[in-house]
Amino acid sequence: MTDAQPLVGVVMGSSSDWDTLSGAAEVLRDFEVPHEARVVSAHRTPQLMADYAAEAEQRGLRAIIAGAGGAAHLPGMLAAQTIVPVLGVPVQSKALNGLDSLLSIVQMPAGVPTATFAIGTAGARNAALFAVAMLAREEPRYAEALRAFRAQQAERVYGEELS
Amino acid sequence: MTDAQPLVGVVMGSSSDWDTLSGAAEVLRDFEVPHEARVVSAHRTPQLMADYAAEAEQRGLRAIIAGAGGAAHLPGMLAAQTIVPVLGVPVQSKALNGLDSLLSIVQMPAGVPTATFAIGTAGARNAALFAVAMLAREEPRYAEALRAFRAQQAERVYGEELS
Amino acid sequence: MTDAQPLVGVVMGSSSDWDTLSGAAEVLRDFEVPHEARVVSAHRTPQLMADYAAEAEQRGLRAIIAGAGGAAHLPGMLAAQTIVPVLGVPVQSKALNGLDSLLSIVQMPAGVPTATFAIGTAGARNAALFAVAMLAREEPRYAEALRAFRAQQAERVYGEELS
Amino acid sequence: MTDAQPLVGVVMGSSSDWDTLSGAAEVLRDFEVPHEARVVSAHRTPQLMADYAAEAEQRGLRAIIAGAGGAAHLPGMLAAQTIVPVLGVPVQSKALNGLDSLLSIVQMPAGVPTATFAIGTAGARNAALFAVAMLAREEPRYAEALRAFRAQQAERVYGEELS
Amino acid sequence: MTDAQPLVGVVMGSSSDWDTLSGAAEVLRDFEVPHEARVVSAHRTPQLMADYAAEAEQRGLRAIIAGAGGAAHLPGMLAAQTIVPVLGVPVQSKALNGLDSLLSIVQMPAGVPTATFAIGTAGARNAALFAVAMLAREEPRYAEALRAFRAQQAERVYGEELS
Amino acid sequence: MTDAQPLVGVVMGSSSDWDTLSGAAEVLRDFEVPHEARVVSAHRTPQLMADYAAEAEQRGLRAIIAGAGGAAHLPGMLAAQTIVPVLGVPVQSKALNGLDSLLSIVQMPAGVPTATFAIGTAGARNAALFAVAMLAREEPRYAEALRAFRAQQAERVYGEELS
Amino acid sequence: MTDAQPLVGVVMGSSSDWDTLSGAAEVLRDFEVPHEARVVSAHRTPQLMADYAAEAEQRGLRAIIAGAGGAAHLPGMLAAQTIVPVLGVPVQSKALNGLDSLLSIVQMPAGVPTATFAIGTAGARNAALFAVAMLAREEPRYAEALRAFRAQQAERVYGEELS
Amino acid sequence: MTDAQPLVGVVMGSSSDWDTLSGAAEVLRDFEVPHEARVVSAHRTPQLMADYAAEAEQRGLRAIIAGAGGAAHLPGMLAAQTIVPVLGVPVQSKALNGLDSLLSIVQMPAGVPTATFAIGTAGARNAALFAVAMLAREEPRYAEALRAFRAQQAERVYGEELS
Repeated sequence: MTDAQPLVGVVMGSSSDWDTLSGAAEVLRDFEVPHEARVVSAHRTPQLMADYAAEAEQRGLRAIIAGAGGAAHLPGMLAAQTIVPVLGVPVQSKALNGLDSLLSIVQMPAGVPTATFAIGTAGARNAALFAVAMLAREEPRYAEALRAFRAQQAERVYGEELS
Repeated sequence: MTDAQPLVGVVMGSSSDWDTLSGAAEVLRDFEVPHEARVVSAHRTPQLMADYAAEAEQRGLRAIIAGAGGAAHLPGMLAAQTIVPVLGVPVQSKALNGLDSLLSIVQMPAGVPTATFAIGTAGARNAALFAVAMLAREEPRYAEALRAFRAQQAERVYGEELS
Repeated sequence: MTDAQPLVGVVMGSSSDWDTLSGAAEVLRDFEVPHEARVVSAHRTPQLMADYAAEAEQRGLRAIIAGAGGAAHLPGMLAAQTIVPVLGVPVQSKALNGLDSLLSIVQMPAGVPTATFAIGTAGARNAALFAVAMLAREEPRYAEALRAFRAQQAERVYGEELS
Repeated sequence: MTDAQPLVGVVMGSSSDWDTLSGAAEVLRDFEVPHEARVVSAHRTPQLMADYAAEAEQRGLRAIIAGAGGAAHLPGMLAAQTIVPVLGVPVQSKALNGLDSLLSIVQMPAGVPTATFAIGTAGARNAALFAVAMLAREEPRYAEALRAFRAQQAERVYGEELS
Repeated sequence: MTDAQPLVGVVMGSSSDWDTLSGAAEVLRDFEVPHEARVVSAHRTPQLMADYAAEAEQRGLRAIIAGAGGAAHLPGMLAAQTIVPVLGVPVQSKALNGLDSLLSIVQMPAGVPTATFAIGTAGARNAALFAVAMLAREEPRYAEALRAFRAQQAERVYGEELS
Repeated sequence: MTDAQPLVGVVMGSSSDWDTLSGAAEVLRDFEVPHEARVVSAHRTPQLMADYAAEAEQRGLRAIIAGAGGAAHLPGMLAAQTIVPVLGVPVQSKALNGLDSLLSIVQMPAGVPTATFAIGTAGARNAALFAVAMLAREEPRYAEALRAFRAQQAERVYGEELS
Repeated sequence: MTDAQPLVGVVMGSSSDWDTLSGAAEVLRDFEVPHEARVVSAHRTPQLMADYAAEAEQRGLRAIIAGAGGAAHLPGMLAAQTIVPVLGVPVQSKALNGLDSLLSIVQMPAGVPTATFAIGTAGARNAALFAVAMLAREEPRYAEALRAFRAQQAERVYGEELS
Repeated sequence: MTDAQPLVGVVMGSSSDWDTLSGAAEVLRDFEVPHEARVVSAHRTPQLMADYAAEAEQRGLRAIIAGAGGAAHLPGMLAAQTIVPVLGVPVQSKALNGLDSLLSIVQMPAGVPTATFAIGTAGARNAALFAVAMLAREEPRYAEALRAFRAQQAERVYGEELS
């Protein structure tokens, strides 16, 4: 979380999803993107969710990263109530390993899109990187930071040794 | 649909789901259960959905049969906004044959239940039969009708011939 | 378990399913719903199962919560032998993580419904909450308790902190 | 069906399953195994099923071929009520293509076995061939017929041309 | 396709994918978003793909909608070679109905994000709607158009009749 | 293993499968069925497998219980080379939890049947119980033992307590 | 089929698989690779299969393309009996769309490899292209032909129009 | 790794895949096949991958063993850029156990083949054994070594004891 007006909201259906979604917050912090993180449950707090979605645009959020597991309705229901782009992160569920979360998020019917990323931490990190890329058009420093990040991760590959 | 104050609401995310959900309406009509049927989309009309859920109890609905396909959020989101029992029917989807619909409906996290039935028409008919069974305690005629229905379908088995 | 005449029966195919089904009993106890819990195996004790189903209505059971794993026939076979609503809980199985349990319970053919809930403890708790909702119509105190429960779990979401 | 005392019973949950199970009857007829075929529904006629199982042994049935689709409980529930070997045939279901049928039949818990064969007609034919093999020990003519059948189908492979 | 400098590129692995991806182009045309559409195959034309990705940013593309089926590598490989946001559309494949396409696109490892949408035409349309939402921040007319689109599709729900 | 001429052969593709298949041997030992157990690999020792199958009938084997994991070809390939009934046990595999083993064993094409049981130890035990049931026709003591076993396991259910 | 000493054998479990495997033969013919095609069934003609594998090396086969569906044992069992490389093609099966075929072929345990290709015709064509690539080292004309083929298919992409 | 000019390249998308791919290197070392092993990421280092593929043929590589997990694009993208045979190894992924890796590698469209092996270490070892078999034609010592390896593993089966 940061003091500046948040540009990205990171929300999740339960505090237990923080193990996964903290990956998104870390990336946003590393890229110095003002953001907020909180629990917003589609099922336990539908009104909070509706309010969060309704206010997102005027609060200046440029993207909402939403993670949930099982019958994961949070990303799709936020997307139904705002035109701010929603990036969905399927949390790995206990029984079905996140296949249920993935399908619940990605298989949206035509009309209300949810951009979906990989199950688990990889998806959380990538949702944040995608948010940075969305911001990069307007804010050249994000474009530069992304290019530097890409270069660095390429460098690491070159340097990796197999012992 | 019937003139009497509806006891069961049959809702679905799209008019294309009526091919499936009409199975529920047929059963309710056969059992003479006052009911209504309409399109209520979680994603396209979240406010309508919220209103439908909020008014369900005071309108006298004893159960809501909700069908949807793909990332099927309607049953769970209705259940999140009313204590009237919600019976979910996974509609067979084009690509994944309803596996996505099923998991999106049945894998609800603890706290907000959605009773789920089989994918497709069988599930729609069974949701309606379940609603009748719920009503049977108070209204003995439904119990009698159910017992008669059970007896009839057993009779049909006895009479089936394999040519 | 409680001394009063049970309104809900919690049955399971094996004592090893108690790890899951105890979640249902806990919820029923918290809501002060008279209930009973016992092992009834479809495969090892089909006669006991038939008797349990046959007597359920006259014993005053308003719902039967039935959990089983793998080729989980208990919920469907109980439902075949009583008009008391049966709520099925798929127990997470060893090899297939409960996908087999889920499909064995939910994919009932038209004619005999089984209301199905999520795989594992979430499903057990939700089946019990659903049973409470079924009872809430007649017993206003259950409706009140459900509303209070809903309010409490919403409160907890508002208070959750992500450290 | 045949006039002689049937050695094998072919049962199915619905007359619509006859498209699949007739494959078993054809094989039995070709091998001149006395058999019967009828609809016995686990869910619609549980008592008929119980009676069928209870009488199977004394009626001289040496095997029961049982087919069903979806939440397919017939093979397992017959097996629970007789020690006559039950051969299960998963019928291809509409939405899930028989994966549900297969898991509902094969994933029996330890204690009550059901021998399972492939989804659909191939499984029905193979269940019948397996029944013939079971009878072959006592009746050498079945062993001879099986060996001839095997030789014939090998011959056909040798003769197949790819145009 | 449009005369103006394209803001969105719609690319696909094969001309047979156009049945699906034309859904994206239609939405973009309806929203008057300048765009282009062409075949770019990851496997048959890797150099063309690399060039397309390398030039995307300087050509002014704000998003690339990339669809492919089976082992669908196009979205991820484009994303690996540009920081322009890539929106992946899994095309329904013949044998596995697009489950392979979906997993090949969505399960990207951390570091290179691909925003994924539903299998088939719904996903293609939603990817385009998502692209419009991305553009809406800078171009208020897109935001207005999106809000109008949302209102219209809600209206249609209100007007739907179930005959 | 036993001194008497074995009636049942328990074979497996690898000694690591013994964790699973020992469940079959235990049941056979408990029922005092003469049996043998050994490693026979379809892939590493195809000739040994062919010999084992070719000699099974004349060696007096009444059934072969064959377990294997992954691309599990042992049961089907034994069945292709003998008319002695083959009972297949899918061993739980590392990556896919035995789904691959199950499908490799059960989905035999018409002409060569393999009776399949549940994934893992439950399947191994049930395959052995099924073999006992096959022997029960000729040897009344096996029928009696099976009935006693069934009665005992029912008794255990009656006695189970849920603490 | 060709007159020259075949370098590649195309075999399949049933003549019905020829719809799929003819794709391999077509590619081999286009590349002028001497080859043969025939039905060899693992289950119906295990001895023929053993002979085919045993003679493959001395007959000069450089690769065997083997296709089968369902519990597809042909590729793995050929590979078990020859060191000639075996290329497996999963044929799309009726119920499970070739997922069973794929897993039965690809999930070979360590020790006996089977190179696996996509389900259906794409896999058949690619197996043949792979065989050509294997031959390309020794026969430069195959390398040249492959490079020309690659260039052609790239050209076709450049020329594709989306109407 | 070895000093001689490598004949086989073992590449993987991340150093974390070395746990799996080291199985390939071990087999190659045991068979004294000159080889190299390194990290080449399709997504993080697409240019390195393109270069590796472009130079493979002239560097004398006879096969490339490529392993990756999740949306595993490395094998297919290498295959798209060289005619040197590519052997793909699906690495077991965290959430979906390698099913995503498998489908991403094996389901290549017609035109660019990737030979695929089992998920995990078994697949890595088998890819290496397959590479040895490819080399065996030209280098008789590899053929002899393979035959010896086969004989040894058969011997081990004969000697295995079940305690």
